[in-house]
Amino acid sequence: MSPAPATASVRIESALEAALSRADGGLAPPGLAAAMRHAVFPGGARVRPQLCLAVAQACGGDEPALAEAAAAAVEFLHCASLVHDDMPCFDDAAARRGRPSVHKAFGAPLALLSGDALIVLAYSTLAQAGAVAPARLAALIQVISRGVGMPLGIVAGQAWESEPNPPLELYHQAKTGALFVAATMAGAVAAGADPHPWRALGERMGLAYQAADDLLDAIATPEEAGKPTGQDAAHLRPSLVAELGLRGAYARLETLVGECMAAIPSCEGSRELKDLVARQATRLAPKSLAQSAA
Amino acid sequence: MSPAPATASVRIESALEAALSRADGGLAPPGLAAAMRHAVFPGGARVRPQLCLAVAQACGGDEPALAEAAAAAVEFLHCASLVHDDMPCFDDAAARRGRPSVHKAFGAPLALLSGDALIVLAYSTLAQAGAVAPARLAALIQVISRGVGMPLGIVAGQAWESEPNPPLELYHQAKTGALFVAATMAGAVAAGADPHPWRALGERMGLAYQAADDLLDAIATPEEAGKPTGQDAAHLRPSLVAELGLRGAYARLETLVGECMAAIPSCEGSRELKDLVARQATRLAPKSLAQSAA
Repeated sequence: MSPAPATASVRIESALEAALSRADGGLAPPGLAAAMRHAVFPGGARVRPQLCLAVAQACGGDEPALAEAAAAAVEFLHCASLVHDDMPCFDDAAARRGRPSVHKAFGAPLALLSGDALIVLAYSTLAQAGAVAPARLAALIQVISRGVGMPLGIVAGQAWESEPNPPLELYHQAKTGALFVAATMAGAVAAGADPHPWRALGERMGLAYQAADDLLDAIATPEEAGKPTGQDAAHLRPSLVAELGLRGAYARLETLVGECMAAIPSCEGSRELKDLVARQATRLAPKSLAQSAA
Repeated sequence: MSPAPATASVRIESALEAALSRADGGLAPPGLAAAMRHAVFPGGARVRPQLCLAVAQACGGDEPALAEAAAAAVEFLHCASLVHDDMPCFDDAAARRGRPSVHKAFGAPLALLSGDALIVLAYSTLAQAGAVAPARLAALIQVISRGVGMPLGIVAGQAWESEPNPPLELYHQAKTGALFVAATMAGAVAAGADPHPWRALGERMGLAYQAADDLLDAIATPEEAGKPTGQDAAHLRPSLVAELGLRGAYARLETLVGECMAAIPSCEGSRELKDLVARQATRLAPKSLAQSAA
């Protein structure tokens, strides 16, 4: 393993820990503080913050603390969406990352509040770091909010599941792609670069991730996935497997991984970024998945 | 009625409408867009944004658009907390402001998501307006986030209800006071003024408001209140009425209103602010309430 990802992981975990420590200081209600930590640690692959930091690095990385805050904000927003999506009124999922989901461990009230508190923490983390580069803060918040809020962010994606005939591409783009786009564009903004060349990479990564997630949901056991599987079929949700079948969905995933590599703008740090995408691709589309889909 | 509050009301409603229009543009999932509007319009007294604008005005009001964004952000966060607090896992309240609550009208999934989307909208509204005064944006977000998030904001206040022995003063301060403090301090920051002299006014207003709300919950019919009453007793929640009895709680409310007037820092616009507080006091502590409490 090259040293770069280890360093990025340490930076991400430190940024998350520092922000959470500010949030659950001395006078905080202990149940909510514990629920927030349960939602954030231990994490999954942290793919969105990894991507955010890698793009900031590729763009010169002149404000590393701001890039770390952006990466932490994106991850907090992702964790908040997982906590809320797992709740009884959505997936009613008892497990996440191989442990009880937040509402199973702490009850629905603290699950609901921990999601809310993590959204707020995402923005206060940005503001705390943004004071050193105020000119970038407004753009950072806009880019990240577009990935989360209405009309095209992850809450919109989740809301399409309440509509009778969701437009499939818009639904997928909002449900998963939007936060990947936020991650890549925020990395660029944090480094003072133009974010627009970085949109395509985020879009492709999001689509690849969604395709892999749909395949995992259709194929994997709950033990392998660390969460309930078969959920798309159970909730009659639109999914790439429902649309294209197993083999078609796997072929689409392979195409998308290639498109991710091609979407990386040429820049000084593009080699490290290609390494990151290649590692994620191996993780997303392992040989075993290809065999199951065959 | 003096012209000042009408103007402030128009500014507030316009700011809320402009932000919501950005959020529910063409491609938004229609159910979530409608749920967000239901949560925000028609509003209640809009006391927090009124207070925010009045403080900004009292401080010179040199960036009116930023003050309007701060006022809208505070109101969106308040509306989000009402939507989530009304949900089945908390108050399970069927009505709010005399209409069905959001989860009754749109179901729990869209209620949960509309709260999330309103939190995000609060911050993107700040960022949109903050681009013209970037140096103030970071401070604005910090001041407002402290009123909402952990460890001392409204989500912390709500979370204290899940604890066996909540510290009463901290609970009340977080549950209601924190967002009033955010409103007054944000008004000052938006106008480029030192926010700290404005903390006391927000604290006293929040305590007065909580006292009036506790009394209303104990005394009023659901028709009078526009929402279910008797909730504190039903959920065995700590309340000023449970602590001091009806007469004691009313006496405390009268004291708090006096403290609000005394907490207004002397400044150019303090007369208009005193008018606003007096109008709110008449609304909060009407004669009928005194008779019921006697």
